[in-house]
This record gives sequence, C-alpha cells and structure tokens, in this order.
Amino acid sequence: MIRCIPSIEVTDVTEWENNQARRVQDYLATEEPLEMRAGRYSLGVTLRTPGDDRELVAGFLFTEGIISQPEQLLSVEAADNPTGNSAAQTNLARVTLSHVAHLSPGKAARRFSAGSACGVCGKASIAQLRRRGVRRPDSASRFDPDMLCQLPEKLRATQAIFGRTGGLHAAALFSRDGEMLVLREDIGRHNAVDKVIGWALLEGQLPLSGRTLLVSGRGGFEIVQKALTAGVPLVASVSAPSSLAVKLARELGLTLVGFLRGRRFIIYSGEERLLVPSPALVEGA
Amino acid sequence: MIRCIPSIEVTDVTEWENNQARRVQDYLATEEPLEMRAGRYSLGVTLRTPGDDRELVAGFLFTEGIISQPEQLLSVEAADNPTGNSAAQTNLARVTLSHVAHLSPGKAARRFSAGSACGVCGKASIAQLRRRGVRRPDSASRFDPDMLCQLPEKLRATQAIFGRTGGLHAAALFSRDGEMLVLREDIGRHNAVDKVIGWALLEGQLPLSGRTLLVSGRGGFEIVQKALTAGVPLVASVSAPSSLAVKLARELGLTLVGFLRGRRFIIYSGEERLLVPSPALVEGA
Repeated sequence: MIRCIPSIEVTDVTEWENNQARRVQDYLATEEPLEMRAGRYSLGVTLRTPGDDRELVAGFLFTEGIISQPEQLLSVEAADNPTGNSAAQTNLARVTLSHVAHLSPGKAARRFSAGSACGVCGKASIAQLRRRGVRRPDSASRFDPDMLCQLPEKLRATQAIFGRTGGLHAAALFSRDGEMLVLREDIGRHNAVDKVIGWALLEGQLPLSGRTLLVSGRGGFEIVQKALTAGVPLVASVSAPSSLAVKLARELGLTLVGFLRGRRFIIYSGEERLLVPSPALVEGA
Repeated sequence: MIRCIPSIEVTDVTEWENNQARRVQDYLATEEPLEMRAGRYSLGVTLRTPGDDRELVAGFLFTEGIISQPEQLLSVEAADNPTGNSAAQTNLARVTLSHVAHLSPGKAARRFSAGSACGVCGKASIAQLRRRGVRRPDSASRFDPDMLCQLPEKLRATQAIFGRTGGLHAAALFSRDGEMLVLREDIGRHNAVDKVIGWALLEGQLPLSGRTLLVSGRGGFEIVQKALTAGVPLVASVSAPSSLAVKLARELGLTLVGFLRGRRFIIYSGEERLLVPSPALVEGA
C-alpha cells in the first residue's frame, strides 16, 4: 500500500462488472486511531483521518468539555504530517493542560465514555450542556437566505476531488457574507467539526458569533452540541437532522437548517435569524 | 412534538424555497441516548434510534468484547417500545452478566472509552482483536456475484419509506441464497449492525458462517470489526470502505466489498469467496 498524502491511500483492488473481473487501483480515505494523552492520563481515542491533528485535539477537548476555556490548553504536540514518522508517533497526541482543568482519569474516562450523550434522556443531555456553561448563541445575528443557498456549492468547490467522491465528510465555517473561513475533511463528521472549531480556538477566534457552520451529510446531536459549545448561531446541513439535534437547537436557541439544496432548505429552529420579522407564512400540508 | 412510532417523530418546520417561507410538517429520525448498566456499573452510553433495544445491547456487549460468549449474557431488560414509558425508563437497559465476564468499572470504561479504536495504530487495533479471540471467518464459504448484486434492492425494498429517504441507516443479513434474514435500522450505522448481530445472538445463530452483512453507506473499521467478531465472512456496502477497514479485512481474511451498485462492485479483500479460482484477471489502469 502506497501512502500518497495523509488523508488518502492507494491500493490494488478487483473491480467486478457484468461477470468480468479486473485488477485496478483504488483510493481509500485513511482512517487511523488517535490517542490523546495528558501526562499519564488517556483523554480518549478517536478514529480519524490523519492531518490537522492539533486542531482536532484542540477542538475535541473544547467541544467535549474537557477544557472550558482556550487558555486551559497550554500546548498540543501532534504530528500533523505523518510522513516519515512511525504510526506510534503519528497516532499519539500529547497535550498540556493548565491546572484549571481539574483532570482526573475517572473524569476523563466518564466524559469520553459518555461520548456526546451525557445522560439517559435528551433532557438530561441538554441539562448537562447547561451545567457546562454552554449558552445561547448571540441573538443579534441575521443571515441572508440567498447567501445560505450558495454555501454548499462553495463547500463542494473547495473540497479535494477525493472528498467530493463521498469518501470524506467536510465541515466549513463561513462569515456572514458567505466567505469561507476554513474547511476541514475527515472520515468522521464529528472530527471534521472538531478540526474546524479547533482551528478557531488556536486562531483565537472563539466564540464564533456571526458564523455559519456547514456540514456535509446529516446534522445529529453531536454536531449541534459542538457548534453550541463554540458559540455558532447557525448550523446547516445538506441532509436531515435528528430529533435530538432539533430539540437541543430549539432549547438553546440555535438556528438549525437541513436539506440545504439549490434554492430550498428547511428551518428546524431559530427561523428569526433567517426570515424578516412576521413573514407571511403560508400554512401548508 | 407528536410521537408516532418509536423511530420517527413529526414536527412543525419552516420550508424556505425561492424567497417563499411556509409552515409544513416534517419527519425526524428519533435519536436518544441509551445507557447500559450491569448492577451499579455503567457499561456505556450510545446515541441510538429507539426500538430493538434488547438486540442493540446484546450486539454491543458482544461486538465490543464486554462478553465473549453469548452464554455470558444472562438477561437484558430494555424497553423495546417506548410508548407509555418515561424517558428515564426507556433509555436505560439493565443487563445481568455471568461471573465469567470479568467486569470492573475500569475495564468497562476503558473498553468503551476506546470505542472501536483499541490502540494507537491500526496494527495495535488488529492485534487487540486477535487477543480477544476474534478469528478468521470460515474459508469454505463461496458467494455468487449475481446474488450479491441483488441485495441492495432487497434492502431498499424492505426498509420503511422513511429509511429510504436517508434519515436512517440500515444493516441486513442474508443467507447464501440471497434470502434476507433480518434488517435493522438506526441513526447510527454501527447501532444498526449491533442490532443485527444482537438479533443473531439472541436467536442462537452465532457464529454467522455463510452469511452476508450488507450496510447502507460506508464500511468503516467498526463495521468490519463487528462483523469479524460475529464470524461473518462477507461484508458489503454501497459506498466506500476506509483504509483501516481494508487492512483489518485483509489481515483476518474477511471478504470486503464496496460500491455495490447495479451490476458492479469493488472487492477490497478476500476475492476467493466471490471469484472462481484463477480467473482471467485483466490488468487495468
């Protein structure tokens, strides 16, 4: 197996078509585990596409509540470009946290073991986010629906060719004018979002007031949770959100858009950021 | 929000199209956390679509290595149909394990914290599966490529209408003749696979020699890992596998097929189960 760039591998496969088999080369999205360690404590392991590992770690620690302020992350040592390093080196990220982050192995394990589902029902999950200090995004932001409709094409145009084939998920952050600020790709959608938010954290751009987060595919609970933690007021996806994502967005006042395709989208929550006040809504079926 | 059937919720949303906004009803895939407990030990929390929770729990415990034999699972109490129960009741599954399963909170946390990425590189992940006693699937099974090509249509035909819209992932198990034995849906692809394997475990059908596991979407490491644990010799997906899924399939001799669409598919590993011996392979570009 030949390694080309960190996120893609080339391999020989067999293509079968109409009873004919032939050997061809194929591209695979790279998937490798990354372990995050603070001293001797393991903070967790995530399966990710290598590349932008520092951003991934910073974003993960912040959106999962292991740190609550960017200043608590003193350093991240991760191999952003695996070329020439051993797997053990490239798949281990060492972080230094300030003592403000009250870290214990139990706490880290609990946080991670619960993943993003911290409670035994949606209400408990939402209450836990509140306890972590996650607040409503800024309510002053207004967004232009026409600007929103242009974002999926900008995302597709910027994704590497491979990503467009469906092998990798993408997440991107846009300004109110629809300018793309950052795009990150990963085999896991939640990792792509963590890379984007980690970029913002390392660039000193948190909270992300006035920004739009666009994700390929669907918008589940984890995506909305991560966006809220970073202060994003508008999350859009090209496919469906889940019931828990909608509940969380409504509860905490985030604008959630789904099925953003062409000149059409569905607003699940917070439509006041996209529509003029008291629009003449037609009651439909 | 009106609850219809456990896996789908109906809600009022705003549809925006060409500068016109109107209120409509929309369907959402239900996503709720499920906590699994053995006595006072939490075995983990997973975000899942309610329904078939007993199968999900059985499959999760087995494919994640918390139990290694079906007999170690003495009982699963889970509310398969949430109607009429409180969220706290329906999102908590209580399991009783035999003392053969050497359970400790630390072990459970570690297993779950590592998710399916048990190690700091692909090699370590694969080695850990070997230590758990995961073996090569039966090598005698042979499968007909024409039978394989018919499976995606059978999966789509059996999925509920909602699932076909893309809101839910599906996993299904087929006999060597292409007969569908079980189909399960979930907002998480790994949960759909756990429900299928949990069904087989509770039905006393493990190991799944001679069976094909078909999943909607992509075939990542977790899917191949779970299939290997259950002894499935052939895993097919309608989209791309990841690099780590291919490595694991090649290492442990599982037949891995991707891009199964119409009369074409790609064989990433174990082609001897699908092709006649020494086929006239054409070297292509």
